[in-house]
Amino acid sequence: MGSSQPPHIVILGAGFGGLAAARALAPAPVRVTLVDRQNHHLFQPLLYQVATAALSPADIAAPIRSIVKSHANVRVLLDSAEAIDVARKQVGLKQCGTIDYDYLIIATGARHSYFTNPEWESYAPGLKTVDDATKIRRAVLLALEYAEIETDKPRRDALLTYVVIGGGPTGVEMAGAIAELAHQSVSKEFRHITPHCSRIILVDSGDRLLKSFPEPLSRKAEAQLRALGVEVKLGMRITELHDHGVKVGDTWIAAQTIVWAAGVMASPAGEWLGIGCDRAGRIPVGADLRVNGHSDIFAIGDTAACHASDGTLLPGVAAVAKQQGHHVATLISAAYAGRSADRPFRYRNYGNIATIGRKRAVADFGRIRLSGFAAWLLWCIVHVWFLAGYRNRFTVGANWLWSYITFGRSARLITGLGGETSPTLVTQMM
Amino acid sequence: MGSSQPPHIVILGAGFGGLAAARALAPAPVRVTLVDRQNHHLFQPLLYQVATAALSPADIAAPIRSIVKSHANVRVLLDSAEAIDVARKQVGLKQCGTIDYDYLIIATGARHSYFTNPEWESYAPGLKTVDDATKIRRAVLLALEYAEIETDKPRRDALLTYVVIGGGPTGVEMAGAIAELAHQSVSKEFRHITPHCSRIILVDSGDRLLKSFPEPLSRKAEAQLRALGVEVKLGMRITELHDHGVKVGDTWIAAQTIVWAAGVMASPAGEWLGIGCDRAGRIPVGADLRVNGHSDIFAIGDTAACHASDGTLLPGVAAVAKQQGHHVATLISAAYAGRSADRPFRYRNYGNIATIGRKRAVADFGRIRLSGFAAWLLWCIVHVWFLAGYRNRFTVGANWLWSYITFGRSARLITGLGGETSPTLVTQMM
Repeated sequence: MGSSQPPHIVILGAGFGGLAAARALAPAPVRVTLVDRQNHHLFQPLLYQVATAALSPADIAAPIRSIVKSHANVRVLLDSAEAIDVARKQVGLKQCGTIDYDYLIIATGARHSYFTNPEWESYAPGLKTVDDATKIRRAVLLALEYAEIETDKPRRDALLTYVVIGGGPTGVEMAGAIAELAHQSVSKEFRHITPHCSRIILVDSGDRLLKSFPEPLSRKAEAQLRALGVEVKLGMRITELHDHGVKVGDTWIAAQTIVWAAGVMASPAGEWLGIGCDRAGRIPVGADLRVNGHSDIFAIGDTAACHASDGTLLPGVAAVAKQQGHHVATLISAAYAGRSADRPFRYRNYGNIATIGRKRAVADFGRIRLSGFAAWLLWCIVHVWFLAGYRNRFTVGANWLWSYITFGRSARLITGLGGETSPTLVTQMM
Repeated sequence: MGSSQPPHIVILGAGFGGLAAARALAPAPVRVTLVDRQNHHLFQPLLYQVATAALSPADIAAPIRSIVKSHANVRVLLDSAEAIDVARKQVGLKQCGTIDYDYLIIATGARHSYFTNPEWESYAPGLKTVDDATKIRRAVLLALEYAEIETDKPRRDALLTYVVIGGGPTGVEMAGAIAELAHQSVSKEFRHITPHCSRIILVDSGDRLLKSFPEPLSRKAEAQLRALGVEVKLGMRITELHDHGVKVGDTWIAAQTIVWAAGVMASPAGEWLGIGCDRAGRIPVGADLRVNGHSDIFAIGDTAACHASDGTLLPGVAAVAKQQGHHVATLISAAYAGRSADRPFRYRNYGNIATIGRKRAVADFGRIRLSGFAAWLLWCIVHVWFLAGYRNRFTVGANWLWSYITFGRSARLITGLGGETSPTLVTQMM
């Protein structure tokens, strides 16, 4: 590309961080290329609602092109990075080949991690993408369908046992939502199984749920989950995991549906740079979010290991990624405006909120702590507000209102059956 | 099962026909088992809107259990039939084994047919299920994404060429919707391709589109499609079909996306009965919808060959199936009430309507014929009204209103990418 063109900023990943950076760079005298391997930006905090059939994928996902269409200097590529050449200042993309950058922003996020047991992934899917969510939705709904026609009691019990592994926000939200789905829909629509047939088990190795919250809120969340009928097992480790159940400590639990919410691993961006990462694969960055040793490369969001001034690692949440994306864009704009471009990033924590179910949530705003209905209402407002597109905000609002009035689950589709039902799951009936 | 139980009516298929029968049998002194291989009833007339990203699957599909939950005598099985033993009055199901019936209602519908070229299916998907629709949606949207980064002009042209085969309502609706999608979204959101790059070609072997409509409306539909930029090729046959294009007569058209809307084949229910069917695999039925030679078996909807009193074959549309389902339920109820149970079925045709695009449609009500905006408005009202569940009616209404105001496409998701983008489609850029 000719030298007369404006400088080129390449952003890898259109999650909360990458998208915030792209939007904030729109007024700057630069060209921006935003690369993502999906065509849509996903509002991940609500993904568990897709997995539990309350929302449709399109309710919480918006095409990236559509979000940035008014920014003429932003180009979107459906592609994935495979390599970075820091000396030549080039990124290798799978489809588009090599592209040059003047500044590179790495915002490639994280995937779930099964630590030393990668083979567990096929039995216990995690929840990061739309396809993950529809896969879990299919498993959860099919288990109910097969239980309805299963006559062998141990097999029926296994079909109606759901194990969620990991007691962070995703695990808590999933367990609560599965409990609501299984108990409510079974109560009216099935003829052979009854609500008390279902067991939902949440396992965590720590001594409390939601470790990022103050302890009293963790206890309230636990009590609210138990009130929904979830069995909470703390201080327990998964020692075995198969397609038909898990071993929790020494106890075998036969379960057809297992969901993984226990850990994440950063994207392989650290490997592309050839630098040492932390245990979770995160790239170490300085106070100004530059990758150590590279003044023209920034890393933000879940793939970066960024420490607050008190030395604690910033959490992998949307608010951190968005603020970092905005900060990096400000630094780059400052550089081209001839101003100083190394201002340190400071995370403003506006609060922490997690939902347990209908009318149940916990919220932490430092001195103010809420739980129950007030926290849930606040959670609804915050999440509808932050959804990326105006249209989505509208639909999610309408859907929630409708669910609230009717107790319904609007998106209870089993897709991908293709006319085939699994022959091994069910024995015989009648 | 004990003889003290009420008689057992088995319904195969929960499409428009099967569902209408189940609902109408709810007050009768019978047990009903409704079998479907999907967990949802699909509002097929709007499926093309899922394929073209205007609606989400859940907007036009409702769980069968949820639709019949208030009918205590109706049981739903997620299963598929494999055999019928007419002597023993039993149906063989894949999962649940053998079940007895007193009356059997066959409402198993139709699939698309590729006639003597079954190998075409993998290159030119048809549109019958939610999975068909999301597959076509992925193909249509990916073609635009790959075209945006393709530098080789012939390949880019092929990516932006869409061929729809079949000029019935589905083909006409698909061609119009693809044209709107490609032209509108490209106009603002892509940087390298422009709206006039896209070619949408509709091919039919007959001399006019929409043969079930009066000829003047066919001509109006054709004119409206051409106004949307669709190339209409009539009197042309597909002679070859590959993954990279089709031969129309003697002309090769390089095209990445091909949609099949040219023909349907009834379900294999005729084979299970071991009786002779018509060329499209439909089961011959008498005036009272009983399968010839079987007083306890009815066939309705797309899988039945039912003739009007003037000898013409009734069309495979929702209205016929619904009225037939209701009729059969009335006959069965009459039989158990000791009344005559062989009243002949009469189809009441309330009208025929097909949409071409935003503000474009044709409608035929015998003496009254409409086209353009008035027909489109009527089409919207009719379709929102007939959607199975109240909740869906609400969302579809809201979505359409929103699309109408914003020109947006709300469900433009490419799913199933799994982080992999096809390596063979795109060469290189820049």
